[in-house]
Amino acid sequence: MTPRVLVTGASGFIGWHATRLLAEKGFEVHASARHRPIDLPEGATFHHNDLLADGATALVKAVRPSHLLHFAWNAEAGAFWNAPNNVDWLAASLGLYRAFADAGGKRSVFAGSCAEYDWSKPTLSEHSTPLAPASLYGVCKDALRRAVEKAAAQDGISFAWGRIFWLYGPRERRGRLVSDLIAGLLDGCKVPCSEGSQCRDFMHVEDVASAFVQLLMSDARGPINIGSGKATRVADVIALTAELIGRPELVELGALPSGPNQPPTLVADNQYLKDAVGFSPNYALRDGLSETIEWWKIANRKN
Amino acid sequence: MTPRVLVTGASGFIGWHATRLLAEKGFEVHASARHRPIDLPEGATFHHNDLLADGATALVKAVRPSHLLHFAWNAEAGAFWNAPNNVDWLAASLGLYRAFADAGGKRSVFAGSCAEYDWSKPTLSEHSTPLAPASLYGVCKDALRRAVEKAAAQDGISFAWGRIFWLYGPRERRGRLVSDLIAGLLDGCKVPCSEGSQCRDFMHVEDVASAFVQLLMSDARGPINIGSGKATRVADVIALTAELIGRPELVELGALPSGPNQPPTLVADNQYLKDAVGFSPNYALRDGLSETIEWWKIANRKN
Repeated sequence: MTPRVLVTGASGFIGWHATRLLAEKGFEVHASARHRPIDLPEGATFHHNDLLADGATALVKAVRPSHLLHFAWNAEAGAFWNAPNNVDWLAASLGLYRAFADAGGKRSVFAGSCAEYDWSKPTLSEHSTPLAPASLYGVCKDALRRAVEKAAAQDGISFAWGRIFWLYGPRERRGRLVSDLIAGLLDGCKVPCSEGSQCRDFMHVEDVASAFVQLLMSDARGPINIGSGKATRVADVIALTAELIGRPELVELGALPSGPNQPPTLVADNQYLKDAVGFSPNYALRDGLSETIEWWKIANRKN
Repeated sequence: MTPRVLVTGASGFIGWHATRLLAEKGFEVHASARHRPIDLPEGATFHHNDLLADGATALVKAVRPSHLLHFAWNAEAGAFWNAPNNVDWLAASLGLYRAFADAGGKRSVFAGSCAEYDWSKPTLSEHSTPLAPASLYGVCKDALRRAVEKAAAQDGISFAWGRIFWLYGPRERRGRLVSDLIAGLLDGCKVPCSEGSQCRDFMHVEDVASAFVQLLMSDARGPINIGSGKATRVADVIALTAELIGRPELVELGALPSGPNQPPTLVADNQYLKDAVGFSPNYALRDGLSETIEWWKIANRKN
């Protein structure tokens, strides 16, 4: 039987790409979000649903998914870290789990975050790094994983939890590093940046979405890092982007202060992801950034 | 201003006693539960509310509590440990927190459990014992504490989390050690028991409720053990009860197998409770059991 997949947060950054990949692979895809994306991937069926306001019961009853890919959460740039409604997203996600379990769902993958980990060591591992989230976002994601992992084991539902690291790519909303940088440089504006000496694990959004889709179609369980395993200096991401656009003189490195809670290096141990689903990223950083820049050029032309 | 207290689970074992103590102390007490207790403590105002079905928004809007004492949860003897609706109680409790915060609440105490701890060491301490809940109940309680403690700190709401240990006393429902034992012995029936070699931290329900009320009226924050600090052999509780009733020959010690996950000793480190709210229990075990037996005699006469 072809899996019938429900994707929540399907108009979001990763959710949209995952919806497209699932539809391309021929799965029956039901995409839910508060707002219908204007470019809903072909083959996907859209369901208007606001998990915070409507809950998940009616949605799940209508779709009766065998597979669930849960991305919906507060993703407002900057604000999401400590927004009070992280608590509400936690509660709504528990309601989604309950509805999915009650409707006979089989396999679910929820989006977690590297923000659940203790950031005092550079390499973050599912097996050996302590969990010590510093933000309300990280605490609520961590609490959700704890509860649903235990409940799913009892309910006989296959459950995995994909911890997302840093990402970039087409359709990223403004307010993030790469999207603001590209949009600013393409507009010919000076772009103030932080010093960017910290190293992070960056992955192209399509690779992130692809890892989630592969994970969903596997039976791997528990928390699993969705990362490249490679640390890249933020300043290098900035310099490469500026070089590809041909406007390095517009970058004002060090004009912005570095944020708080910024350890020098954070990188995913992605051995489990490789072993469990045979994942390896498609995009090298240079190609991924080039493609993202092309997307922005077209997006700008449209607007 | 006199605190206006909302007690959830007010018809339950601890909730009823806490409601009575609060009313006796002259606080404005609003007691909520699915079913009105036939002996609602004098002075308390009752509100019909099923948190799982109705949520908390309307209840909290109606009461506008300054103080919140949250006991409501699945308490079905035996079944509660791994009942699927522990997840729903977690979600409903998050909704209660949200409603309380939105309505301008100031001080809240939620009921936690010693089941959140790693049980591999006998003395359980808020400060040094790792959290490693073995049951879905313990996992969901632990997840709730993590999320609400972080959110409350951000929202400027004073929050404490009382971890309950073992208890006994008047109004305990059947299906628990002391209630089944007393009811059986008073009926003149043989009562099969486990060997009872394990030691646990037992406290009279009125002492537990009193600790919660004192904690609510303090500004102590975070997790805090609600225990006597004294380990008592279960077999001694059984023997003392049988002696007080005068029917030791009806006890069949060792006729039941011991349950799984039964470490030899579990006792609360209650130093924080003593320091923070000056608590000490009123009841010695013998007096507490005598009083409980008297309650059962009257209860039996009533039914």
